[in-house]
Amino acid sequence: CISQDIDHILETQSALAVDLGGTNLRVAIVSMTGKIMKKYTQANPKTYEERIALILSMCKEALKDAVHLNCRILGVGVSTGGRVNPQEGVVLHSTKLIQEWSSVDIRSPISDTLHLPVWVDNDGNCAALAERKFGHGKGVENFVAIITGTGIGGGIVQHNELIHGSTFCAAELGHIMVSLDGPECLCGSRGCIEAYASGMALQRETKRLHDEDLLIVEGLSVKNEEPVNAIHLINAARLGNTKAESVLKTAGTALGVGIVNILHTVNPSLVILSGVLASHYEQPVQQVIRQRALSSAQGIQVMTSDLDEPALLGAASMVLDYSTRRTY
Amino acid sequence: CISQDIDHILETQSALAVDLGGTNLRVAIVSMTGKIMKKYTQANPKTYEERIALILSMCKEALKDAVHLNCRILGVGVSTGGRVNPQEGVVLHSTKLIQEWSSVDIRSPISDTLHLPVWVDNDGNCAALAERKFGHGKGVENFVAIITGTGIGGGIVQHNELIHGSTFCAAELGHIMVSLDGPECLCGSRGCIEAYASGMALQRETKRLHDEDLLIVEGLSVKNEEPVNAIHLINAARLGNTKAESVLKTAGTALGVGIVNILHTVNPSLVILSGVLASHYEQPVQQVIRQRALSSAQGIQVMTSDLDEPALLGAASMVLDYSTRRTY
Ligand SMILES: [Ca+2]
Ligand SMILES: [Ca+2]
Ligand SMILES: [Zn+2]
Ligand SMILES: [Zn+2]
Repeated sequence: CISQDIDHILETQSALAVDLGGTNLRVAIVSMTGKIMKKYTQANPKTYEERIALILSMCKEALKDAVHLNCRILGVGVSTGGRVNPQEGVVLHSTKLIQEWSSVDIRSPISDTLHLPVWVDNDGNCAALAERKFGHGKGVENFVAIITGTGIGGGIVQHNELIHGSTFCAAELGHIMVSLDGPECLCGSRGCIEAYASGMALQRETKRLHDEDLLIVEGLSVKNEEPVNAIHLINAARLGNTKAESVLKTAGTALGVGIVNILHTVNPSLVILSGVLASHYEQPVQQVIRQRALSSAQGIQVMTSDLDEPALLGAASMVLDYSTRRTY
Repeated sequence: CISQDIDHILETQSALAVDLGGTNLRVAIVSMTGKIMKKYTQANPKTYEERIALILSMCKEALKDAVHLNCRILGVGVSTGGRVNPQEGVVLHSTKLIQEWSSVDIRSPISDTLHLPVWVDNDGNCAALAERKFGHGKGVENFVAIITGTGIGGGIVQHNELIHGSTFCAAELGHIMVSLDGPECLCGSRGCIEAYASGMALQRETKRLHDEDLLIVEGLSVKNEEPVNAIHLINAARLGNTKAESVLKTAGTALGVGIVNILHTVNPSLVILSGVLASHYEQPVQQVIRQRALSSAQGIQVMTSDLDEPALLGAASMVLDYSTRRTY
C-alpha cells in the first residue's frame, strides 16, 4: 500500500557500527550522512564467548531502537584492534589489548544471527575510512590516518583506497620503531611509537612519576586511589612540571619521527591525527617534520581530525559505501 | 634493400644506461635481455657543468661503440641519487653526495644532444625496476628493494608498479630513522639507516676504530696511507675483532629495524637487498625480523640480489619497457 512505501522512503539508510577497543566495546547506529543516531558502550569482555555474546545482544538492542529512530540498517561494520583479513571477516592476530581474539571469524556469528551483511577491518584502517568519507581525507588521493587511543592505530589510503599489504599487515603504524632499544611494546618488540606515545604509554609514565612523588605540582591534585592517566600528565606539564613536560616531549618526538618514516616510505600529501591526544601532538609532530624530514617531504599537511568517532564512522562507512554502490 | 633490412633485424634492441652515484659516473650499453655489452666508468665530477659534459661525452662514445656491437640504442635511462620527478626528467633535491644537482633538468641536455628519448629516476627506484625486469622481483606484485652503496637507496613496487608518492619522495628508505638521536646523516637528520649501515657509515666507523688503534688484529694489515673501508671492518670482525663485530652488529640491527618499519607500513611479500654489503646484511636482517616484526609480517622473504648492476639495469629497463611497449 502507498503509505508503507512512503514510510520506507522516509527511512534513513544507516549502518550498525561496532568498535572493539582495548578498553570498551561500542555499538552505534550511524546514518548515511555520518550522524551518530544512538551509541551504546560497555566494557570489552575478556573472553571470546562473552565478547561475541555482548556484540550480538548490543546489536539486537540497537536494531530494535533503529526501528523507532526510522533508520533502515543496511549492514554491520566492525572495527577491531589486530590484523584483519577484511575479505574473510576474520581477525588473524590480535593485539594483546584484546584477549582470545586471534584467528577469530567475526563475520559468521554476526551475519548468521542478525541476517545482515558484515564488514570487518582493523581500527586504524577504519579511522582512515572515516576520514575519507566524512573528514579531512575527502577527495585526497594519498593520505595517512593515525589514531591514538589506548594503543596507536593507522591506516594508509593510496589512490583513494586503503592498502592492506600482502598479509594484511600494512599500516600497522603503531609498531613503527624509532629506537633500537627503547621502551617495551605489547607487540613483543621495543621502541615502537605505541610504546612512547599511546594513552597506555603516557599512563605508564604518569604512574611512574606519581609513584616517585614527581607528578604533583601546585594546582594539580589526584584523589586517593584515583588511577592517574595522560590527562594528569598534560595538566602537570601545563602547570610547570618539567618532568611531565619532558615525558610529553619525548612522546611527541617519537610520534613525529615515526611519521617522518611514513613520509619517507609512502609520501602522502596529508597526515590526519585523531584520538583524544591528537591536538596535543599536532604541533610537536609538525616541528619534527620541519627538523628531520627531507625537503621534498616538507610540503606535507598535518591536521587534527574533526570527527568525534573515527573508528565507529569508519566501520559504518564500509557498510554505507558498499550498500549504496550496490543499491543505486 | 634486403640485406640492410636483415642487418636491422639482427641488431639487438638496447639501451644506454647512466648511473650517477656518490662516487662514480657510469654508462653502459644494456641489451634487451639485461646483458651489459660494454661499461664505462669515471669519477663523478663535482660541478654541474663538468658532470653534464662528461655524461654527454661518455654517451657519445657508447653510441659509437654500440654500432660496432650491433646494438640499436632505443633511448637513455638515467639512475641518480636524490629525489627525481620522472615525468619531467628533473632532479628536485639531490643528496649531499652529489653536489650542484638540485632542480636540475637532466632530460633536456641529453635528448637535445643525442636525439634520443630519456628516462630518469632515483637510484633506489631503478634498483627495484631492475629486480622487477631481470631479478627476484619478476612477477612479484608487492616487493621492496634496498641498495647499499655509498648511501642507501630504496624502491617500492606495489601492484607491479613503483610508487613515487605525492611529491616524489616515496621510498626514500635510506632516511628511515631508527633512533631518536643516533649518528648524524647527510640529509640533516640523525639516526637514519643510511647513517648506520651504508658504506659511508661503515667507513666512518672503521676510520674511527683505526684512528684509535682498535682496528688491526692478527692477520689483518692496512698499508700506510691506504684509506680504510667497510671491507677492512668485515675482515677485522672475521678475524675476531670484537669492536668491529659490534659495529657491524649495530649496522645490521639498524637496517633490520628499518626494514621492519617498512613491513609494518607497506607489508610487501619480498625484500631484495643489493649492493656490495647485501650478503653481509641478509642474515642479521632476517634475525631482526624474527625478533621484532609482528607475527602477520613474519612470512616475508628476504633475498640478496643476484644482479651485478641493479642501478644500471633498472635505468635500462625504463627504456626497454617503454620502447618495446610502444613498438609492439
Ligand atoms: Ca592499520
Ligand atoms: Ca627511492
Ligand atoms: Zn610494537
Ligand atoms: Zn638521513
